[in-house]
Amino acid sequence: MVNETQHTCSASSSSKSDGGSSSGSESSKDSSRCSTPVLDADRHERLREKMRRRQDAGDKWFSLEFFPPRTANAAVNLISRFDRMGAGGPLFIDVTWHPAGDPGSDKETSSMIIANTAVNYCGLETILHMTCCNQTRDDITGHLQKAKRLGLKNIMALRGDPAGEEWEEEVDGFNYAVDLVKHIRNEFDDYFDICVAGYPKGHPEAESYEADLRHLKEKVFAGADFIITQLFFFMKDCQAIGITCPIIPGIFPIQGYHSLRQLVKLSKLEVPQEIKDVIEPIKDNDAAIRNYGVELAVSMCRELLDSGMVHGLHFYTLNREVATTEVLKRLGIWKEDPRRPLPWAVSAHPKRRVEDVRPIFWASRPKSYIYRTQEWDDFPNGRWGNSSSPAFGELKDYYLFYLKSKSPREELLKMWGEELTGEESVFEVFTCYITGEPNKKGHKVTCMPWNDDPLATETNLLKEQLEKVNRRGILTINSQPNINGKPSTDPIVGWGPSGGYVFQKAYLEFFTSSEIVTALLKVLKKYELRVNYHIVNVKGQNITNAPDLQPNAVTWGIFPGREIIQPTVVDPVSFLSWKDEAFALWIEQWAKLYEEESPSRMIIQYIHDNYYLVNLVDNDFPLENCLWQVVEDTFELLN
Amino acid sequence: MVNETQHTCSASSSSKSDGGSSSGSESSKDSSRCSTPVLDADRHERLREKMRRRQDAGDKWFSLEFFPPRTANAAVNLISRFDRMGAGGPLFIDVTWHPAGDPGSDKETSSMIIANTAVNYCGLETILHMTCCNQTRDDITGHLQKAKRLGLKNIMALRGDPAGEEWEEEVDGFNYAVDLVKHIRNEFDDYFDICVAGYPKGHPEAESYEADLRHLKEKVFAGADFIITQLFFFMKDCQAIGITCPIIPGIFPIQGYHSLRQLVKLSKLEVPQEIKDVIEPIKDNDAAIRNYGVELAVSMCRELLDSGMVHGLHFYTLNREVATTEVLKRLGIWKEDPRRPLPWAVSAHPKRRVEDVRPIFWASRPKSYIYRTQEWDDFPNGRWGNSSSPAFGELKDYYLFYLKSKSPREELLKMWGEELTGEESVFEVFTCYITGEPNKKGHKVTCMPWNDDPLATETNLLKEQLEKVNRRGILTINSQPNINGKPSTDPIVGWGPSGGYVFQKAYLEFFTSSEIVTALLKVLKKYELRVNYHIVNVKGQNITNAPDLQPNAVTWGIFPGREIIQPTVVDPVSFLSWKDEAFALWIEQWAKLYEEESPSRMIIQYIHDNYYLVNLVDNDFPLENCLWQVVEDTFELLN
Repeated sequence: MVNETQHTCSASSSSKSDGGSSSGSESSKDSSRCSTPVLDADRHERLREKMRRRQDAGDKWFSLEFFPPRTANAAVNLISRFDRMGAGGPLFIDVTWHPAGDPGSDKETSSMIIANTAVNYCGLETILHMTCCNQTRDDITGHLQKAKRLGLKNIMALRGDPAGEEWEEEVDGFNYAVDLVKHIRNEFDDYFDICVAGYPKGHPEAESYEADLRHLKEKVFAGADFIITQLFFFMKDCQAIGITCPIIPGIFPIQGYHSLRQLVKLSKLEVPQEIKDVIEPIKDNDAAIRNYGVELAVSMCRELLDSGMVHGLHFYTLNREVATTEVLKRLGIWKEDPRRPLPWAVSAHPKRRVEDVRPIFWASRPKSYIYRTQEWDDFPNGRWGNSSSPAFGELKDYYLFYLKSKSPREELLKMWGEELTGEESVFEVFTCYITGEPNKKGHKVTCMPWNDDPLATETNLLKEQLEKVNRRGILTINSQPNINGKPSTDPIVGWGPSGGYVFQKAYLEFFTSSEIVTALLKVLKKYELRVNYHIVNVKGQNITNAPDLQPNAVTWGIFPGREIIQPTVVDPVSFLSWKDEAFALWIEQWAKLYEEESPSRMIIQYIHDNYYLVNLVDNDFPLENCLWQVVEDTFELLN
Repeated sequence: MVNETQHTCSASSSSKSDGGSSSGSESSKDSSRCSTPVLDADRHERLREKMRRRQDAGDKWFSLEFFPPRTANAAVNLISRFDRMGAGGPLFIDVTWHPAGDPGSDKETSSMIIANTAVNYCGLETILHMTCCNQTRDDITGHLQKAKRLGLKNIMALRGDPAGEEWEEEVDGFNYAVDLVKHIRNEFDDYFDICVAGYPKGHPEAESYEADLRHLKEKVFAGADFIITQLFFFMKDCQAIGITCPIIPGIFPIQGYHSLRQLVKLSKLEVPQEIKDVIEPIKDNDAAIRNYGVELAVSMCRELLDSGMVHGLHFYTLNREVATTEVLKRLGIWKEDPRRPLPWAVSAHPKRRVEDVRPIFWASRPKSYIYRTQEWDDFPNGRWGNSSSPAFGELKDYYLFYLKSKSPREELLKMWGEELTGEESVFEVFTCYITGEPNKKGHKVTCMPWNDDPLATETNLLKEQLEKVNRRGILTINSQPNINGKPSTDPIVGWGPSGGYVFQKAYLEFFTSSEIVTALLKVLKKYELRVNYHIVNVKGQNITNAPDLQPNAVTWGIFPGREIIQPTVVDPVSFLSWKDEAFALWIEQWAKLYEEESPSRMIIQYIHDNYYLVNLVDNDFPLENCLWQVVEDTFELLN
């Protein structure tokens, strides 16, 4: 009965999944330090392993293709789209490569940077396309090195369209995708997962269907890990000639007459007569075409999935959201899982895979936190502590495209006031943001300089109290309720594996006047043992009762068979870096909306120069949150 | 109001307290890794700093002097005394140096090893005496290097008694204590705290009182940190000639006529006439002399403390307990503080100062755990995790003097049975240990091979259930109840700073037959998500449902302004080392009490060969402990 050894060891397999020659130093570093509890197997696996695991488990999955945008504004929108569509749980996204658009550059619209943003800032597993024809070996190696440096782990190896009309093979050049596949494997060993394209109707320029099948087989044998193809009926043919890697059919939901025509032109695919017959009569009715496109895609995808040969579906989104999302929802594979591995969104950069603790301050600005810590070699994987004093990168450019407000200046002015009349009118803006009620001019305040999104569901729990204090000049920018052991599956506050319990200490962070701070400090004496505080102004005057420079854990979870996870801390050292950023946002995001020397600008400048940034932690998490009482007592003392 | 900067930084001061040139590598290692939360300032301070802090706070303290024992058995008793008297909270203990007794050797009775045991195994701040006359420079350096290597941090620098009748100064030799002080400072920089002796009546061989005062001043100016003296009336004289370091009066509670005479002989001190007058008539009545001695000591100590010049009292215990403990209790400075910095006794070795997590298995055998991890350079200070796979030293000698049972063989036979008649009679021994009831022969079972002490107070909470299961062959050796957030000041389960909350998952560890294991495994299927188990036999067959090789935190605490502390884990890797030790104890401690081939010995051998060691964790700490139900279900299945 008990003779078999069920004792398993995942340590070796997870270190293997690191893959590649270059990861040696990383994994040896891992073994000399304490490891992080494994919260989420996904974070440690290569894409091809994830794919295999999903297939073995019988899960159906999907992936999403995007192209790089043309303008910086479009890039901001695309990143919001990544966040929204990422919520549906794609296995990966991929970003196409446009040779004409300087795809490997540092421009915010380049393929390289868009893919980097998807990985680092949106936490999405990402494949970067790369074409090779008409490029030098050095250029290609350079692109690949850069991709690796940025944390990209997957390449879609393509030939690309030849530049001239008449294309000729170059001797020793990159003439076919297979040359690129070979080059990647030669130069980068097993570091990258490689995807290749299959052309089921034959490549537009191919000699024959059979020749193309052979080319595909060559690409796979040269080291490709999986194939994305535009249609799938040739899967059996692939198997017949010995291609066994995963083959993923690409789906193009028809979203409009114009985009369909463009695709046909590019891909040289023919649209079947029965589709043409339906579309031509409704070609001026976009909604009708989209509805038809969704219907068609859903029934095609069902057929594919029902065949049992297809485990994942790849969607050409053309950077659009509605049709693809609807298809996925109707197929039942859009999984908006409210459960999170950690209470904040995890980055997909390999060096961040052990990251399991962050200061609470950047809760609403995770992209800024990632930006400011991008140079760290090593992520605090258990504790902070005073000896590791983190050195944060400067945040000088508040207009970095992934930190940019989604709203244009005119809209911000409507929300935050065309003309401010005093501190009170600033209180009003904060209050409207909390309540969701329109301001006096009838505009809703859906974002603030410290938070580009509406109030989080969790913060909604505190709405009533937050409204009350903001009206009186306690200008809150971050808060969380106390939680004394809710199930880890709780839809609002839960995170981590199921069967666990999550906890929080109540937290409140706000700007307020020096008059209120003076009263607050008197009140806090009464709460000395219960409430930890940090109070700082723009000049760095700093008042705290925190013991030494120790961080205070304010979110933690207890799970079956694991160590304690404490993903959020109030870290006194980081707070001083955060306050620079938090104060600067008054000026950068708000004051600069107004003319210099205008009264509105001077009001914001006055607040920036004279207010304090305060954070409070109620350590007695099993009792009722006392922070509201602290604020109440403060106002009482003032009256 | 808020202009001053109250922000303090203890990081630099704690790294400075490392002291000495040799600590460079240690502190640089600290700064590159995550630091442990500071639970207890004592663990990071030097003795002279602790003394200063206690003085500044107006606390009165005491210290205890012991001499090295002559036999290994006496050493075992002395170590138990360290544990008992350590509970009263001495600021330090000191161990005298007997040049004739090979004091620097590795013998279990040497001064060096006794001091090492006090530091490492009993967690006591310890001063090692060292004399210098008639010794070579190399010998002394060797002793000091060894002391440092063993984790000793404080030296009492003495001249010692010259070997011959006629003593002559050696040129360049160590003639006076001051030479030793200088040598320590020259060779070891600031590593050691140095204590010196003051002879208030003049040294027995001194020229004059004034000359001796000058010698004392020389010792202090050469680098001594504080002075222990036999009487205190000369404190003012010390101050007058510029000695400002702490001076600690030594107290000799008269414990009997014989010991008093011996002291007089050795110290060449005179006993005041009024004391002689009291003692002579009662010299044959030990109890009366001790009572008088206690009275005298208490009134003398009161006088000293009331003078305001004395902050600490040093007791010459002569390795006895009763009189000193009584004096301290009557003075009100014996502080049996039930509050612990961590749920297990902390070692005082400097390299263990960051240690804040241990596997639960050695809960009743902490000295064995310390022994088996003594070679570790680095202590897991936050997490274990599979990558740090701890390599435990072998425990081959189960009779190491600090692991030896306090009870002799005859007593163990009375407790555990002169003659065993079957497995049932072994069940009976376990049951009697749990209940505290005498066995059939009328002997109480006060220890077991896995636990040299009676049941812990905390385990008493589980007494009733433990009794029930032991009767039926679930032979428990370790357990803890679940706790869902009790105050950290709870007298039974509390630990750590006040204002916090402590938590536990229910834990049960036991030996049992393969028949019961088979049923248990079936029952555990029902509890798959809730209960983690490890089941192993002596051959290493191992059955577990633990995810990967991750440790399971089973004790943790949440404190104001700090990170989470998780001092106790069930670590799957360590469990395999523990099981070797746990199984071996059946043979080493129990089976070997009986003749070879005797039925009793064969019964224990059978259990050793065939039983399984099981540990169970109920992860659902907020609910009622389900482990008793698991056992109940198992028995039901068997019936």
